[in-house]
Formats: sequence, C-alpha cells, structure tokens
Amino acid sequence: MKNKLTLGLVGFGCVGTGLYEVLNKSSLLDAEIKKIVVKTRGKKRLLPEEVFSYEINDILEDEEINTVVELIDDADAAYKIVVAAFKKGKNVISANKKLIAEHLDELILLSRTNNVSFLYEASVCGSIPVIRNLEEYYNNDTLSKVEGICNGTTNYILTQTNYGKDYETALKESQELGFAESDPTLDVDGFDAKFKLLILIKHAFGITETPENIFNYGIRNIKPEDVKYASEKGYRLKLFSRAERSDNQVFGFVAPHFIAEQHPAYNVNNEFNSVVVEALFSDKQLFVGKGAGSHPTASAVLSDVSALSFDYRYEYKKEEGGKGLSFSPDFEVKVYIGSADISQINQFVFTQVDEVYQSASYNYQTGWINFSQLKGVDFNSKKDLFLALLPEDIRLISSTDNEKVSEYETALF
Amino acid sequence: MKNKLTLGLVGFGCVGTGLYEVLNKSSLLDAEIKKIVVKTRGKKRLLPEEVFSYEINDILEDEEINTVVELIDDADAAYKIVVAAFKKGKNVISANKKLIAEHLDELILLSRTNNVSFLYEASVCGSIPVIRNLEEYYNNDTLSKVEGICNGTTNYILTQTNYGKDYETALKESQELGFAESDPTLDVDGFDAKFKLLILIKHAFGITETPENIFNYGIRNIKPEDVKYASEKGYRLKLFSRAERSDNQVFGFVAPHFIAEQHPAYNVNNEFNSVVVEALFSDKQLFVGKGAGSHPTASAVLSDVSALSFDYRYEYKKEEGGKGLSFSPDFEVKVYIGSADISQINQFVFTQVDEVYQSASYNYQTGWINFSQLKGVDFNSKKDLFLALLPEDIRLISSTDNEKVSEYETALF
Repeated sequence: MKNKLTLGLVGFGCVGTGLYEVLNKSSLLDAEIKKIVVKTRGKKRLLPEEVFSYEINDILEDEEINTVVELIDDADAAYKIVVAAFKKGKNVISANKKLIAEHLDELILLSRTNNVSFLYEASVCGSIPVIRNLEEYYNNDTLSKVEGICNGTTNYILTQTNYGKDYETALKESQELGFAESDPTLDVDGFDAKFKLLILIKHAFGITETPENIFNYGIRNIKPEDVKYASEKGYRLKLFSRAERSDNQVFGFVAPHFIAEQHPAYNVNNEFNSVVVEALFSDKQLFVGKGAGSHPTASAVLSDVSALSFDYRYEYKKEEGGKGLSFSPDFEVKVYIGSADISQINQFVFTQVDEVYQSASYNYQTGWINFSQLKGVDFNSKKDLFLALLPEDIRLISSTDNEKVSEYETALF
Repeated sequence: MKNKLTLGLVGFGCVGTGLYEVLNKSSLLDAEIKKIVVKTRGKKRLLPEEVFSYEINDILEDEEINTVVELIDDADAAYKIVVAAFKKGKNVISANKKLIAEHLDELILLSRTNNVSFLYEASVCGSIPVIRNLEEYYNNDTLSKVEGICNGTTNYILTQTNYGKDYETALKESQELGFAESDPTLDVDGFDAKFKLLILIKHAFGITETPENIFNYGIRNIKPEDVKYASEKGYRLKLFSRAERSDNQVFGFVAPHFIAEQHPAYNVNNEFNSVVVEALFSDKQLFVGKGAGSHPTASAVLSDVSALSFDYRYEYKKEEGGKGLSFSPDFEVKVYIGSADISQINQFVFTQVDEVYQSASYNYQTGWINFSQLKGVDFNSKKDLFLALLPEDIRLISSTDNEKVSEYETALF
C-alpha cells in the first residue's frame, strides 16, 4: 500500500542536494521533490535557478505537495514553517532537534489534529534508527535505560584529546573538518546532546521534558590532567546523554562520563555516535553509526521518506505508561571534579568522598554528590573546573543514607 | 489496539522459565502462558507438575490459546508442531533457526493462508532486533550489504584464540560455559551461522535460498599460525555471515574473515554478536548484543510477544524487489590459505597471488580466487588447512579480467 509522495524541500545544503539526487534522479523511491524553497537569492547552486523558490507559500499552497521536508538551521523559522505545513494537512519530516525539543508536544498534537505524519529520525544520532527502534521494538514497561554518544562533534574532540591533543587544537580540527560550527557552543556545551536526549526520553519513557529542566554540561573545560586521569584508570571520556528509569522516576542529564573498557560505547570514537538501550530481561543493545555530517542525516531523512510511503507514523506507545512517571527527582551520582584551584573543588559538598588528589599544579576529588547540587551550577561557564561522572550506577536517595554519608564526610576532613 | 495473548509454550528450558517469570508473575505484558508442553516426564522442574502437559494436542486443541511459542531443539519435531499450529489458526513465535531456514517459504505461506503471524526475532543474533530493522527501517532497493557475527560460540572461541589459547582449549572452555554443545558441529562448522544468514537474506533482499546452496566454512581447523598471521597484520579473526548485493546479484556465504581495526565489528568479542547493515546513501550501521545464551533469546522472544500484542506481522516488503535477483553467481574473493603441508595450498588455483610465505613448519598464500572453486570443496573436513577471507570487497568476474589474471599467475610461478 505505497503512497506516492510529492515533496517540498525547505533548505538546500548538502543534505538537500543528496536527497535530490536519490529522489529525482533515480527510481529507487516513489517520491519526488517538486519544489525547493531557499532563503538567499543568487547563490551558486548545483541545480538550475528555476527549480528554486524564495517563497514558502509556493510549497504550502501547492496542493500536490503532501510532504514538507524541513532542513534549515533556524529553529524559529522552522517552527513557523512546520506549524503552517501541518495546518495545510501536509506531513513533515525534520532533522531539527532544537525545533523538536522546544515544541515537541505541541507539534505532535498539531500533526494528530491534522491527521498527518511527523517524522524526525534524522534529529537524533544521525543514521542510527534509534527512534524507530524505541517506538517499535522495545516494550513500554520493560525499558530501563537509554544512554549514549549523541553528538559527533564532541566525540571527535574527546577522541583527539584521548590521543594527546589539547582541547583547543582538537576543536579547531573538528571545525576544519566541518563537524563543529564556528560558534561551537551548542555542541561543546551539551545543548545539542540535550535536545536529542529530550527526544529519546519521549520515545523511551513517554514523557516530555522542557530543555530548561534537563541538566547539560559539555566538554569546553576539559584539561590535559583530566584526560590523564582517564587514561591512568583505563577510562575514556565521552559526552553522554543519559536517561534511566527506576520505578516511577526518570533521571536524565547530559555530562562527560568516564567510560570503562567493558562498556559497549568504549570503542566508539571520532564522529561516530552510539546508543545503548537496556531493557528488563534483555541485555544491552548497542547501536553505532555516524552522527555528524550531511551523509548520515540524509540517510535518516531518506528512511523517513521511505517509511512515509508506507504511511508510517510514530504512535508514541510509551505515552500511556509515561503518565505515572516523574522526571529527575534528586539522586546521587559518583563524580570526579578536577581543578588547578582547590577552592573550586571544595565549594562542593560530597555525600561521600572516595579519592582526594592534591599537587602543586592540579587537584581532583572523586566521590558521591547529590545531583540537585550540580543542577544549580552553570558548569559550562566554570573555566577552571572540570566535572565528569564515574562509571557507577546512580544511587537513589533515602534520608538515612544521607545521614550516614555525612559521617564519612566528617571523618575524611 | 492491544490483543490479549494466551500462549502455549512448547519446551521449558531456561528461556521458557524466564518467559514464565515475566509473563505470568508480573503484569508487564498482557499475555499469559496457559499451558506448557514438555517431552520428558518426571524431570525436576521449577513449576508444579500440574502446569505441564506431555501432549501437544493440549495446546493445539485449546481454542483459548491463540499463540504457540516453540522453544525446542529438534527442528523436525518443531516443524510438525508449527505446521499444526498454523492450521489451527494460531500465531507462532519460534527461535529455531534450523527449522526456519529449512522451511521458510512454506511456513510463511502457511501463516499467510491461515491469517496468523509468524515471528522469529530470537532466531538470528539473539537479542539484536535485526529482523525487525531489516523489515521496517531499511528500504528495499537501497540495502547493499548485511554482514556480521551471528554465532556467539565461535566468536567466543575465536576471541580466546586471539588471546593465545589454542582451538581445543577454547572450545572446551566454551562448552564449560554452556555456549557450545557437546557436539559443536553446528556452531564450529558454520551451519548455525548459515541458517541465520539465510533468514537475513530473506529479510534484506527478499529472496529465499536453500541451506544447501549457501557455502559454510567454520573455524574447526584454525591453527596458532593463522592467529599469528592475523595479529601480525593487525587483524582479528571472526566468523562472518555475509550477504551483499550488486545490481541484480546477491552473494552470500559463511567463512572466517580477517577483520581490520577500522571495521565496526573488530571490537565485538567473546559471546557477543553484531550485525553491520550497509545501505545506499547511508553509512554503516552496527548493531551489537549478546548472541549466545538463554537470556538474549528470551529477550527476543519477549519482544515478539510484545509485538504480537499489537498484531505485528512481518510484511516481507523486500520480496517484490527480490524477484529479479539471482543468488551467488560466481565472483572473486581475496583469501588466505594456510597449511603445514604446502601441497594442500597448491591444489588451489589463484587468479592472482599476492603473498607467498614458506617455512619449515608452516606456509601460507594470499590472493584472489574464484568463489566457485571454494564452493566445491568441503573445507570443514580439511584438517590440515585453514582458509579465511581478507578484508577486501568481493570482485565481480568479467572474462577479460580473468585472462589478465592468468598472466600474473604465470609470472609468479
């Protein structure tokens, strides 16, 4: 029961170009791009000028176009286009994680009201079919954890720092390779990874969080000493988007993690992404694929086009089970905090201290800390400090534990 | 639109026990095991005697039971049960790759005729949702390659030989761990991996092959010298099930492969399985999960139960595109052949020789060879020889190439 798809493309960068090649110059899929709307006039493009339009209504008002593929960077402009497309009864395919993270429930409702499909596999982990797998394969109540490397740029940078480069050199390299933007904030401060985590949480646990309510700390402040600690302990640093469920609570955050060799994502390097899904009565499943770049994105968009031709829609099966869940109550995490300035470390209250290292040039402390304490701090702006999670499960907080823990602390200092 | 599933379980080993725990002792899924049919009377089991029956008709004739979960080893007995279940209008979930590989099209037809579902995610790569992904995510005509480690036992053995153990020791260990059977033939000679490959080929390319028509060579004859070659070149040996498409031809076989460090499956060790899917306009996707053992199998069976509750059926979307395809015409592969006895190597005609190594104790030769030549040989029985593929793409055969290639050969000898 295949549908003929007539597409309107908004934005025409590398991804759009690739899509055009596959859809209009081959007969692989029964889908065709009828119009392409771009912003800037007179730019040199690979297709003849007459294919392009500069007026979004040329797509929106065209009744033959039943699907809008939105591939522009500007989330606010994209929002207006997507809303208008839904209202015109058109399906939407988007790769815009910021747009989706900021308006998820509203856009889902709009697509349902207008009886159209809203697909966005390309928005999370490039070509890894993680949304589709969470939707289709993992049963609601058995999913316990989704975590992984959702940002290819930071994974590239961290991999290079593991090889001995400093952060600035690695960042510059990743910019030259086209992975990082000239302003890398969204990537290196963990915002991009957070938008993706928000989408994963929706499809894994059925709940919607606001971006503001999810903690994101990136890799901007990493020092060679922190990388040295990782390698001494046999760890590799990875920026993890992590969400897990315990009973009726869901915990989710983005932060650098020291990853042990046994972890399936340990060997996922450079621009690759990976997602690990854990479910009750199931072992860990690892998905790996390229995350950054136009190729993986185009591949995921193409798979959405293909799915749409079979009338596919996300069913959000987990929403029902998500009704009783609450997001990110407090919990304890085991962390490493490193700084040349020991007073930077001492401003944090550990519920349990495991290691203290002090030297003339660098200091670090590891141990357990309440997440609520971290959440109140803008770590991305703390240049002289680096925080990362150690490979231990999070701990639920019970008041007795807290009391016990204070004793340890007193004993140590 | 959830269906209440009432299950009849055939076979009650570790997998069955785990399923019973989840389905009958928790409310996680709206499915219940009503009857369990086992073969041997009086065996000590974890459930009270009255739950069990020794008569398959107790399941088949029970109209309330709408789904048969078949978990027995004997493929012939399983065949009769599955056929009878379909004819009674019952869905079937099976993990029996031999049964499925030997009767795939017949069973699909029967399930369609009787308007029931036939699911078997657990039959390939344990808990990795590879069938579902091939069915749902990858578009028909864009898939180019599916390959991977589909047998956990041999991957465990090969990993241990990489660590310096000899084959016999590693095999014995894997038997003690419960990975390998006391007669390990199905695993170590690549039959199990072949059954799985056949199922993968069906869901990837839409064509059905007979097991007899697929070449399978295992790891029984591996020598420390072959492992040494691998480590000198920076490779790791893996038993690969490999299928790829080029235009209207599909190539498929099971054989040991030297895997380079850049390959996504290089770091997949011990009992883990992995599948790499390549599609046009898409990067390689790697799926990793545990392959051997009751836990991964139970997890995949559970996911089929969950899918059935949503009325899920494989649609075999690729069948349409598979109509024009032909399986395993001849092609060239780059191989390594090692033996203490040089005459064993010299019986093969290489179309191109790349390396010749000779010493008092061991010899090997690498180069290109026509696959048709390999296919005619029962390598599993050739104790004094080890064959493995080198990390090069297969080459299509054109007559001019063949002529050219003979010159090389003449020049070398």
